[in-house]
Amino acid sequence: MSDINKVVLAYSGGLDTSIILKWLEDQYQCEIVTFTADIGQGEEVEPARAKAEALGVKEIYIEDLCEEFVRDYVYPMFRANAIYEGEYLLGTSIARPLIAKRMVEIVKETGADAVSHGATGKGNDQVRFELGAYALSPGIEVIAPWRIWDMNSREDLLAYAEKHNIPVEMKRGKQSPYSMDANLLHISYEGGILEDPWNEPDEEMWRWSVSPQNAPDTPLELTLDYVQGDIVAIDGEKMTPAQVLRYLNKVAGAHGVGRLDMVENRYVGMKSRGCYETPGGTVMLKAHRAMESLTLDREVAHLKDDLMARYAKLVYNGYWWSPERQALQTLIDETQQVVNGQVRLKLYKGNIIIIGRQSAENSLFSEAIATFEDDDGAYNQKDAEGFIKLNALRLRIAALSGR
Amino acid sequence: MSDINKVVLAYSGGLDTSIILKWLEDQYQCEIVTFTADIGQGEEVEPARAKAEALGVKEIYIEDLCEEFVRDYVYPMFRANAIYEGEYLLGTSIARPLIAKRMVEIVKETGADAVSHGATGKGNDQVRFELGAYALSPGIEVIAPWRIWDMNSREDLLAYAEKHNIPVEMKRGKQSPYSMDANLLHISYEGGILEDPWNEPDEEMWRWSVSPQNAPDTPLELTLDYVQGDIVAIDGEKMTPAQVLRYLNKVAGAHGVGRLDMVENRYVGMKSRGCYETPGGTVMLKAHRAMESLTLDREVAHLKDDLMARYAKLVYNGYWWSPERQALQTLIDETQQVVNGQVRLKLYKGNIIIIGRQSAENSLFSEAIATFEDDDGAYNQKDAEGFIKLNALRLRIAALSGR
Amino acid sequence: MSDINKVVLAYSGGLDTSIILKWLEDQYQCEIVTFTADIGQGEEVEPARAKAEALGVKEIYIEDLCEEFVRDYVYPMFRANAIYEGEYLLGTSIARPLIAKRMVEIVKETGADAVSHGATGKGNDQVRFELGAYALSPGIEVIAPWRIWDMNSREDLLAYAEKHNIPVEMKRGKQSPYSMDANLLHISYEGGILEDPWNEPDEEMWRWSVSPQNAPDTPLELTLDYVQGDIVAIDGEKMTPAQVLRYLNKVAGAHGVGRLDMVENRYVGMKSRGCYETPGGTVMLKAHRAMESLTLDREVAHLKDDLMARYAKLVYNGYWWSPERQALQTLIDETQQVVNGQVRLKLYKGNIIIIGRQSAENSLFSEAIATFEDDDGAYNQKDAEGFIKLNALRLRIAALSGR
Amino acid sequence: MSDINKVVLAYSGGLDTSIILKWLEDQYQCEIVTFTADIGQGEEVEPARAKAEALGVKEIYIEDLCEEFVRDYVYPMFRANAIYEGEYLLGTSIARPLIAKRMVEIVKETGADAVSHGATGKGNDQVRFELGAYALSPGIEVIAPWRIWDMNSREDLLAYAEKHNIPVEMKRGKQSPYSMDANLLHISYEGGILEDPWNEPDEEMWRWSVSPQNAPDTPLELTLDYVQGDIVAIDGEKMTPAQVLRYLNKVAGAHGVGRLDMVENRYVGMKSRGCYETPGGTVMLKAHRAMESLTLDREVAHLKDDLMARYAKLVYNGYWWSPERQALQTLIDETQQVVNGQVRLKLYKGNIIIIGRQSAENSLFSEAIATFEDDDGAYNQKDAEGFIKLNALRLRIAALSGR
Repeated sequence: MSDINKVVLAYSGGLDTSIILKWLEDQYQCEIVTFTADIGQGEEVEPARAKAEALGVKEIYIEDLCEEFVRDYVYPMFRANAIYEGEYLLGTSIARPLIAKRMVEIVKETGADAVSHGATGKGNDQVRFELGAYALSPGIEVIAPWRIWDMNSREDLLAYAEKHNIPVEMKRGKQSPYSMDANLLHISYEGGILEDPWNEPDEEMWRWSVSPQNAPDTPLELTLDYVQGDIVAIDGEKMTPAQVLRYLNKVAGAHGVGRLDMVENRYVGMKSRGCYETPGGTVMLKAHRAMESLTLDREVAHLKDDLMARYAKLVYNGYWWSPERQALQTLIDETQQVVNGQVRLKLYKGNIIIIGRQSAENSLFSEAIATFEDDDGAYNQKDAEGFIKLNALRLRIAALSGR
Repeated sequence: MSDINKVVLAYSGGLDTSIILKWLEDQYQCEIVTFTADIGQGEEVEPARAKAEALGVKEIYIEDLCEEFVRDYVYPMFRANAIYEGEYLLGTSIARPLIAKRMVEIVKETGADAVSHGATGKGNDQVRFELGAYALSPGIEVIAPWRIWDMNSREDLLAYAEKHNIPVEMKRGKQSPYSMDANLLHISYEGGILEDPWNEPDEEMWRWSVSPQNAPDTPLELTLDYVQGDIVAIDGEKMTPAQVLRYLNKVAGAHGVGRLDMVENRYVGMKSRGCYETPGGTVMLKAHRAMESLTLDREVAHLKDDLMARYAKLVYNGYWWSPERQALQTLIDETQQVVNGQVRLKLYKGNIIIIGRQSAENSLFSEAIATFEDDDGAYNQKDAEGFIKLNALRLRIAALSGR
Repeated sequence: MSDINKVVLAYSGGLDTSIILKWLEDQYQCEIVTFTADIGQGEEVEPARAKAEALGVKEIYIEDLCEEFVRDYVYPMFRANAIYEGEYLLGTSIARPLIAKRMVEIVKETGADAVSHGATGKGNDQVRFELGAYALSPGIEVIAPWRIWDMNSREDLLAYAEKHNIPVEMKRGKQSPYSMDANLLHISYEGGILEDPWNEPDEEMWRWSVSPQNAPDTPLELTLDYVQGDIVAIDGEKMTPAQVLRYLNKVAGAHGVGRLDMVENRYVGMKSRGCYETPGGTVMLKAHRAMESLTLDREVAHLKDDLMARYAKLVYNGYWWSPERQALQTLIDETQQVVNGQVRLKLYKGNIIIIGRQSAENSLFSEAIATFEDDDGAYNQKDAEGFIKLNALRLRIAALSGR
Repeated sequence: MSDINKVVLAYSGGLDTSIILKWLEDQYQCEIVTFTADIGQGEEVEPARAKAEALGVKEIYIEDLCEEFVRDYVYPMFRANAIYEGEYLLGTSIARPLIAKRMVEIVKETGADAVSHGATGKGNDQVRFELGAYALSPGIEVIAPWRIWDMNSREDLLAYAEKHNIPVEMKRGKQSPYSMDANLLHISYEGGILEDPWNEPDEEMWRWSVSPQNAPDTPLELTLDYVQGDIVAIDGEKMTPAQVLRYLNKVAGAHGVGRLDMVENRYVGMKSRGCYETPGGTVMLKAHRAMESLTLDREVAHLKDDLMARYAKLVYNGYWWSPERQALQTLIDETQQVVNGQVRLKLYKGNIIIIGRQSAENSLFSEAIATFEDDDGAYNQKDAEGFIKLNALRLRIAALSGR
């Protein structure tokens, strides 16, 4: 069918990607290399080895990328305070660039000629994955079975599995009614009853957080230490990036923090409804803004705000590996050199309550100047008159001219 | 001292503005017109009449501007989803343009030559007030006593009051330790222990909301009706704009919604720490985004997001009456024609949980296209390949050239 | 092949679209409606009638759209000062939305089911044309033969013409070595020796302008009258929009004005090199900026400048009929109410030299304030101190903190 | 009058700054340090020494800053393609930050406590100068005599000079009717008959360029070599930044290039009319865009375009030494790593005609893909269908919903 000899497949060990594995072998008469990454999705990755072996795969990559994921993708993105469409913390979007990068590297290591993935033709993930692959390996072949084959439903898949002797244990027990995606930053839910945006999700859908109703009656207080915009310690204990996020997920989820239910605009052109749990990330965003509020210059902060939605859109649309994202990141990282200090906050029944921020070295907050009391001349109130007069000048000239 | 004969004073009836009243008479040998507006600050305005009369004022304006305030200022601003510095809902900022406008009108009605206010020379309010006055009446004189006189503290003021026989009842009983400002949209707190941003505010500071801890255990569910971006009914009951905001303040405050504690950047150049309660506004922002998520085109929504921070900055800095704010408003209002429908949400212990959105006429959500199930050809997954390939082309060419 | 019965074809009367006409009939066994528009390309459109008749077409639309083109497309775009990538005046881009709109109307008038065009699969024009068609008629079929058939070169086309008895007179005599596009706003050249961006175009390529070297030694002086941002008269003589552009093309071309040679980035992902002649448009842009410089508020002008590139990109990429372009247009048109007055300029050997601008009603230029001489107190220089001091405050606080 | 003991004065040697020198001594009973910089204004700076000595100054700084000026200020600004209000190349604006920086250094070297300058209270230069001084030395005193003293006209100054025995030779012979400013980047003219924006400037006003009419009949062809966005050689000859600008000024001025006549919006609130000659800079801008057109990624170029006006405004308003300008510069400089290659152009009677651009290492122009001829499969035209279909999807859904 083409001259493809070896394909690196993003393999979860589940039914769908097992079927893809078989289908690729059939269609292309090619060898398969499986790649299974632990990026904190909360399921064991090691079982994927036995399943791949059972399917006859000889080159099997199983890797723990959690630390790299948070350090090189999640953390830089949070320096930008990125939110898509006012709400979404980009939990799914930010994992794809790393998967794409690692697969392209495995293609080189194994002498493969193509990559394949299980993302559908309707979603954003195919775009994020493939833009990354093409940017990092411009001549690569990408095989997206969902855009090629005729199977359109679960029944079709099951029939295919039966026909091709794909082992029974691949079928998960009770199927979730939702399409889900998880990594250390978040878990997402789409499909099922969510396809009507007037429906409320069932309480049992949520997996990583209790509802605010069921959260403890006692707030939890945390102190976060920031160095150059990144959290490096919690309550005085140094942690790696993945440790930070894992810890925040645990405590924030336990306090009912981080649920989101929204309708979003996909890059491929339609609206879709998604529910997300991002406990740690929700804390990180609010705390980072608090840390910046004390340490960033006003106009630098406003510049970041003006560019934030653009940056978030780039990540959402899959342009992590683009030169424009990298140019923006350079600006953002430059601004973070001074974002050092501590933020105190409380978690309580879904709320994140900032209760303090300080920066020994980089605070721009001047109590002497801000005070409502006598400031001993630190600020000359008479200066305000000229400031206002000149800022008003163009408005006055316009009004005088009859506008 | 100058040829000022009559001054319109923004008069609260409190000690500070009573002193200003006396001081203006002394300094300028002029008549005073007092203007006291009810914009929902939660204090009676009528007592200001007796106080002004006691001080010898002959022209006294006392007006209820609540409806105009919400309809013509708060509502248009919320169409923009305006947030300053990622957090602040602009509660103080949005009231000044209306006060400025009304005072300029009273200047004309009374044949006055100047306006005066009690805002200090360190804050944003002087700027907002005066930019409005100059834009609407370019030749007007503005007298800002705090920038002129030598009094710098409460003791100075009390001494002045005593010396000039300003009635004792003007002095409020127990003085709040905070500098506060209130209107239908919010109440703010600055100063006192808040001047150290590492300090947590006392629970008793908050006046309009219970703490999430003390909120009811049972959620309250609301359905909001939108017409062209504005809420016109709650739970099926038609309400005026001021009624909407009053109702939302009541129920959201009762459920612990709308507290904010932040460090912000003032237009006059320093950072300051403020605490805000905006119960109804916090609901309005989140619900409006939900209504837009279903009805706005993606790129229109993104355009609004890209301009939002700019719009918010204009309002914060006092440029409501500027042509650039008006140009942006034209764009924003144009986009809102289709923002019609209903949003369902729950209030619970500080959380606003969106649980549904629908629009009979203007929904752009297509279940047929978004579905994960077979869509009968509504969307051709094969199109995604070309979409990705062409979007990747520039990235591939760059990679091929060695980048 | 499909259930297409009647196709509206954008028909120039030339060889390529005549071949498309035949090919459509063959492939789809369908009726063809031809549509030929005069948008100022400088060739007679009436001959297309005989050619279409000779090919057996029964429904033939030939229309003069020049006035509509300039009034409803070119003029609104120039209100935005639109330039793509710092150089390109969007001459080709702006004509497609009108063609798309008119064809969609003809589809409805004739009961057709599809439209077809002769744009290639590598260019921007297919995108502009089809985005317009889909936006205005969401269920329409678009047939783009160049993306379907196997013909890739001129030889292929000639062979096809011979085989299908497409009349010889369809072949133009001496073929231009360039791919060209023309309308009242501009003429463009691509391909041939231009495909190496290090090559200079031959002088004989240019058709609408003399070289600056060959332009007259005497400057031509013009006075343009603006009403709401649009030119309504030249040298005191009232003109329609199309008359204005035709006149400016003539005189500016004669004076060597309006040539451009650039490398641009296509929406479909590659760079391409184009040469453009836009004599009248080049004058319009510069003169419009001069008119705005006197009449627009500073911040409104800067807002327009900040949005300009975005607007230009929308037009370039084919999003004229999108809601985001319309939202921006609303803002732009709102700003133009005050852009009234006169601009004087000289054309001389490729130069446009602005020599005067005035606005009796809407000038914001105040000689009294701007003067270097004594201004009798119109401006208080002492105000500048406070203005600078407060603008410097954040910079000073940062420096004091050690930055 | 205050505790000022030593003032560093920006001293040109002309009458105005000589008067300021005397006035400062009188008012503050202080020592004066003069600072005279050669930044390419075209006048000898050495004579300022004798004049300062004649006025009794003991510490005299006379310095050639041309190379630093172009290398560290002009070149970085041109990497941004900065233009203010569509026209102005920021020639005056870009010189102030350097002067401010050097004066602040001299304050430290000489143990002075203040700086002083001759800029008026109506202009931008005071702002640019003082914002720089405050940002670099937050506790510095700035003395701006024009905002303090009562002299308002030339007559006042002459009377003062006479009274204080300021030597007669300080008065220039024939006074220019214009207020001028010059440095290696440009010369500017304001005031006089220019204060009516309907007046054309006299031909004899211009000093650095011939009129296009008087320019040679033979074009001059140049080849510019770029390394990382900066010109490093002309016609194969390596040059320093100042040498480049000096050479381009000479040849472009001789060919009538670089005149500008505009109305601009000052930061202090009024419109003013200025004429500028920027021969070399005008060439640099156009050539830099040509170099970028071949080497920059599309979206990086568009990001730069979207930020350009903001960057230009910062420079115009005097925020060179602000953190937001520095953050933007970081982004801009990052993009320039690939801006390497050659640009060929012709100068002819006011025109700059780009005739070629190439980049051996960094060109993103792919003739194979861009060609109108058969491309052997480098680009699959069928991909365009999916690209258009998905980009159109949201427009089609909207149209189907009745918009």
